[in-house]
Amino acid sequence: MGGDFAPEAAVKGAVMALDAIAPESRIVLFGDEKQIRDILAAEGCPADRFDIVPTTEVIEMGDHPAKAFQSKTDSSIVVGFGYLAKGAIDGFASAGSTGAMMVGSMYAVKPIEGVIRPTISSLIPTIAGRPALLLDVGLNVDCKPEVLAQYGLIGSVYAESVLGIERPRVAVLNIGEEEAKGNAQSKATHELLKAESRINFVGNVEGSHIFSGKVADVIVCDGFVGNTVLKMAEGLYRINRATGVENAFWDAMNYENIGGTPVLGVNAPVIIGHGCSSPKAICSMIRSTEQCIRAGFTERLRCAFKE
Amino acid sequence: MGGDFAPEAAVKGAVMALDAIAPESRIVLFGDEKQIRDILAAEGCPADRFDIVPTTEVIEMGDHPAKAFQSKTDSSIVVGFGYLAKGAIDGFASAGSTGAMMVGSMYAVKPIEGVIRPTISSLIPTIAGRPALLLDVGLNVDCKPEVLAQYGLIGSVYAESVLGIERPRVAVLNIGEEEAKGNAQSKATHELLKAESRINFVGNVEGSHIFSGKVADVIVCDGFVGNTVLKMAEGLYRINRATGVENAFWDAMNYENIGGTPVLGVNAPVIIGHGCSSPKAICSMIRSTEQCIRAGFTERLRCAFKE
Repeated sequence: MGGDFAPEAAVKGAVMALDAIAPESRIVLFGDEKQIRDILAAEGCPADRFDIVPTTEVIEMGDHPAKAFQSKTDSSIVVGFGYLAKGAIDGFASAGSTGAMMVGSMYAVKPIEGVIRPTISSLIPTIAGRPALLLDVGLNVDCKPEVLAQYGLIGSVYAESVLGIERPRVAVLNIGEEEAKGNAQSKATHELLKAESRINFVGNVEGSHIFSGKVADVIVCDGFVGNTVLKMAEGLYRINRATGVENAFWDAMNYENIGGTPVLGVNAPVIIGHGCSSPKAICSMIRSTEQCIRAGFTERLRCAFKE
Repeated sequence: MGGDFAPEAAVKGAVMALDAIAPESRIVLFGDEKQIRDILAAEGCPADRFDIVPTTEVIEMGDHPAKAFQSKTDSSIVVGFGYLAKGAIDGFASAGSTGAMMVGSMYAVKPIEGVIRPTISSLIPTIAGRPALLLDVGLNVDCKPEVLAQYGLIGSVYAESVLGIERPRVAVLNIGEEEAKGNAQSKATHELLKAESRINFVGNVEGSHIFSGKVADVIVCDGFVGNTVLKMAEGLYRINRATGVENAFWDAMNYENIGGTPVLGVNAPVIIGHGCSSPKAICSMIRSTEQCIRAGFTERLRCAFKE
């Protein structure tokens, strides 16, 4: 149980998710057992619809992620990653400490062999109707072109397997459509992706087409730029909310509908939720974790990196 | 006369601008004299309200900027920059070839002594009501921290003198508010700006606050990031237009109201318009050129770099 409104929001979101996932999928809750059972009772939901793994500690937002991960061994994040690493669960999602979630991803489930640097990604809505995948959105802010080129492959496998997009169009975020445009990093990345035969590389995508859906299904960028894009979209979403703008496109921009931030390139599905996750956001996050599992994403990614 | 719809849009915009600028300001039109006079006649505007400098050549969008600047010596851009360099006009604006405008800025009016790299900037609307200045927006896409730090000073002088903002808040665009956040470039820039006593440095600004106006009046970033921000805003503006969203905030995002892209750090006011500029956009551009001149921006910037 993690997040600013844990455990209430997390448990309520899990209850909502029961109807959103396949009947044969099982949700495992890690957290304070009494609190979980009390909230389930208040929600009128039988506790046996979940597996409950009791934990006693909490990694706080102020804790040093790596230290907390080592010392708070009975926290929901550490116990959850233990279950994930040994295969007792198939995927793990939390709205708790992002830092601790990354520590768990890197040291408990570990990067897939061949992946230079795992990445965090985000689905972004487009007016074309289907979402695009943006990566990296803030983990690696000084990326070498080789790392960005791998993101093209990782994103392509995700878009194909989890989002069901056939031959997803992969593009480099850049300041112009022409091949020669860009900074040193984007130009070198363009060259590497052009030579990558396993993906459908379509060239550069400009900022103006991130949300149009006309150019790309997978948008590769440095974490500095991706984080700016994502936060700028959030800021404009908030401005629109405050000024009464409402429509399907902007509604899809609501973090509650995004389904969290998948950590890609590690040996199991891990999804990080917004700290302020509402029950609806938790439900979306559980749903996208299930999609990732059912798509066999991790295994497909491992295969791609073995080729 | 430059731009996709030249000379019609340019002349019509100049006619509109007559009412938008001070009565003692004088607009000089560079271009095909007959065409200009014909359009003015059709608009019912006496030709003597302008100075007309006849030119016979046109730098096309497909021309190599530097070569065209050398060979097409009787084009409106080259003649205009000649007038600007010798002080026969006080500022120069065109919606023609961006490349040729940059060549003119760098080689005809030249960078101000002490400025490592001039920059192109853009006003961006905020919901706080007053605009913020974003720089660089695409000229320098691999900036050293020393260059970005100078942009802080350049932007501050612009915001104070041209926009009339007292002690403008200068911030570095970054992925977190905390000082230690960012990539190598933004962290080093933060350090340099912190030590710059001539500006009101307020720290980092995240993507979520670019358009809120809550944090900064001057936002410093690499041209790669700034270009992405600007184009993403344009893309979202277009999506909003297509989906019927309309309000004052988004209307201010319309390039027609922005007033072009000031080139900052050179020895005279130069403003580059959107290639597709409408008469309204040309009018805004002329107006912001006049503001730049009346504010004595160039002289103030020269002073700042002498200190």
